[in-house]
Formats: sequence, C-alpha cells, structure tokens
Amino acid sequence: MNEMISGHTVKAYNQELKTINQLAIKLGELGLDQLRRAVKTLKEEDTKAAGQVIDRDQKLNAIDVQADEEIIRLIAKRQPVAKDLRDILTVQKTIADLERVGDEARKIANLTIHFFDNGKTPPGNEILRDIYSMAEFVDQMLVQSLEAFSELNLHKALEVIKRDETLYEEFRDALRRLSTFIMEDSRSVGHAVDIVLALRALERIGGHAKNIGGFVIFLVTGKDVRHEDLNMIAAEIADRL
Amino acid sequence: MNEMISGHTVKAYNQELKTINQLAIKLGELGLDQLRRAVKTLKEEDTKAAGQVIDRDQKLNAIDVQADEEIIRLIAKRQPVAKDLRDILTVQKTIADLERVGDEARKIANLTIHFFDNGKTPPGNEILRDIYSMAEFVDQMLVQSLEAFSELNLHKALEVIKRDETLYEEFRDALRRLSTFIMEDSRSVGHAVDIVLALRALERIGGHAKNIGGFVIFLVTGKDVRHEDLNMIAAEIADRL
Repeated sequence: MNEMISGHTVKAYNQELKTINQLAIKLGELGLDQLRRAVKTLKEEDTKAAGQVIDRDQKLNAIDVQADEEIIRLIAKRQPVAKDLRDILTVQKTIADLERVGDEARKIANLTIHFFDNGKTPPGNEILRDIYSMAEFVDQMLVQSLEAFSELNLHKALEVIKRDETLYEEFRDALRRLSTFIMEDSRSVGHAVDIVLALRALERIGGHAKNIGGFVIFLVTGKDVRHEDLNMIAAEIADRL
Repeated sequence: MNEMISGHTVKAYNQELKTINQLAIKLGELGLDQLRRAVKTLKEEDTKAAGQVIDRDQKLNAIDVQADEEIIRLIAKRQPVAKDLRDILTVQKTIADLERVGDEARKIANLTIHFFDNGKTPPGNEILRDIYSMAEFVDQMLVQSLEAFSELNLHKALEVIKRDETLYEEFRDALRRLSTFIMEDSRSVGHAVDIVLALRALERIGGHAKNIGGFVIFLVTGKDVRHEDLNMIAAEIADRL
C-alpha cells in the first residue's frame, strides 16, 4: 500500500478525489440542463436558443478533458492500488457517460433547427408528443443517476437500471406509433427520420443514466454488474439494500 | 519516474502492455465475428444460430472483465505516469468500445429471433436490403479500426472517422426509405420498429469504430481529438500522415 498508509496522504488523496467527483457532478448537472434546454427549444420552436445549446456543449467537452487530466494527475501522483484505483477508474467511466449525455442533448437541439429553420412545414404536436413524454422520463432517470452517484445510493442506482427496461418499451411504442402516423398521414414522412433520431438520442441518454447506476453499484459494493441482467443485480445487492 | 527508469522494468512493462493490447485485439476480432454471424442469421433466417450468437456474447463480456483486471493490475504494479498512463487508459477506453460492439451484434441476433420465430410474416428481402448494405459498410469500418489499432496506423484511423459521416447519411437514407415502404405497403408496419432497431445497432457499431479511430490518433500523436470535427482532426495530424 506504499505511502497511502500515512493518514496525511490519505487526507490529501481524498480531497483530490472529491474534486474529481465534484467535476463529475458538475458535468452531470450541465448535461441535465442541456437536455432540458434542448427539449424546451423544440417545444418553443426556438432555433436561436437551440444554437446556444449547441455552442454550450463545448463547455461540457472542456470539463470532460479537464476531468481526464485530473484523474491522470491523481493516479500518477498518489499511485492508488486495489479498490482505490478501481474506484477512480469507475469515476472516469461515469464522466465519459455524462459527457455523452451532453452530445445527445446537442443532437436534439440540432433537430430543433432542422425542424423549424428549413422552410418545410414543421411537424405537428401530435407527432412530437412522444418525444416530450420520453424526454420527461429520461430526465427523471438522469436526475436519479446523478443522485445515486453523489449520495452513493444503491436504491436509486437499482431504480435507474430498472427504469431503463421501461424506457426501451417506451421507445418501441413510440416507434410503433410513428409508423402508424406515417401510414395514416403521408405528410409526416418528411419528419419521420428526424423524429426517430430524437427518440434515439433520448433513449441513449437513458442508457447512459443506466450505466451510471451500474458504476454506483460498483463504487458501493465492489461488484461489477455491467454484464448482468436486472434480476441478477437485484439479487446480488439485496443484502445491502 | 521511479522504477520505470530501469531497462529491465521497462521490458516487463512493455510485455504486460502487449498482453493487454492482444486482449483488445482478440475482443475486436470476436466482436467482428459476432457482427458477421448475427447478420448471417438474419439472411439465413436461422433462429438457432441467432441463439448461439446471443450465448457467445458472454465470452466477450468475460474478456472485457479480464482486460479491466489486467489493466488495474498493470497500473498498480508498474505505476506508469505521463504518456504511459494516458496510453493504458486509452487502451481501456478502446476495450470498452469493443465490448459494446458485441452488445450490438447480440441485439441484431435478437432481432433474427424476433423476425422469424414469432409466427408473424417475416419481413421481405426488399425491406431488409438496407440492413445488409449498412452491415457491410460497418463491417469495413470495424476492420479498419482494428487494423488502425493493431498497426497504430494514422491513415486508417482518420479514414474510419471520415466514414462515420457517410454512415450517418446511410442511416438517414435507410430510415427515409423505410418510411416510404410503410406508406406504400402497410404490411411492413409490423416490422418497422425492429428494422429501425437493427439499423440503429449497426450505426452504433460504426460509432464505436469511429471512437477507436480517435483513440488510435491519441496513442500515435498524443492529441486528444475526441471533441473535434473531422476537418480539425485532419489538419492536426496532417504533418504525421
């Protein structure tokens, strides 16, 4: 365990780790904010605000790069081993997923511009409704995953993993309704592709939230549940809930 | 630079790093094989073989977990710093993307079962054609990214990043054609959702190949191009090509 034994160094290490965790939380909050803003631009048909969401993604990218730097510095300086090292690499994975949330939010803002800034008839509200309800569901998943991470809360981590299964059903249902729309009203064909892309972006954000849930379970229990299904995960952590 | 200075230790470190790189390449080859098998099950309407593809994904998961263990062990034992540490963490990210290739291949095999094992009329070849051509394109991207990684080849890395833009267009085109199909032949509605999911799985595999291209550029040049667009990347590495 080399120098990590010294209480003095442990304290410094914990302080540095806290800084990195705070960066992760900040990135998560920004990603959530980007998601909300992007969906709002769609609702308000505000292409100018959509452009701002797109520009703002650079801020998230910068935090991602900064966090990577801090993690490299921390490992090089403190040379953690065993669980400490695993934990810090897990925080790195969490950050990678959070950064991708921002990417997906940016794509949704891009669709706002595509829908309302190209001279075509914009899609009707009926066809957009599934996007809004999925966005709300995914918003809750993301909030839950961020809380799970900052509180190291196993309940919330498991809950968000559970919700990902519901999300997949919602996604399929939305695609099914979209197919019916297209069949019934050929004018919706022009927007079908973009609607699919928006739904897909939302579904991916949910997937990232789910991944974060898995990382939290690892941080709390030391169990790597990435490749396990929900029932196995629930059984494995049952004694800790 | 602690003990890394000793030539003896450098040699041992390089040997261990090579073992991890070989695990990554093995995982990549298995992922490619899974993709090919999954697409074949779709073409041959072979639900039994599809089940085998699904079962086989556990093998990839096991390599992913093993690689993570080896990386943790290597960092803890050799305590690399600076570029050495960055490189090993980049290999870890590469492995994460390769493992997800396997996940997407598994999803395609799942769709084979869904298409041909549920008593519904299977989709016609015309509607499946876009899946096959996209699968071929993605197959080439994956091959290129694996070659780029194992040869540390900048040309191939840049090429695969370029191709991802074409893939996105292909994906949009395929979705557009699918919308037209639905409009013209209402019998295709029943399969529309699964077709979208198959196209999405393929597009994601291409996205993973692209990520690997970015990691190879980092390994060769030390430049983190994850958040840059194609033109910026090309300009940045122009002097190395």
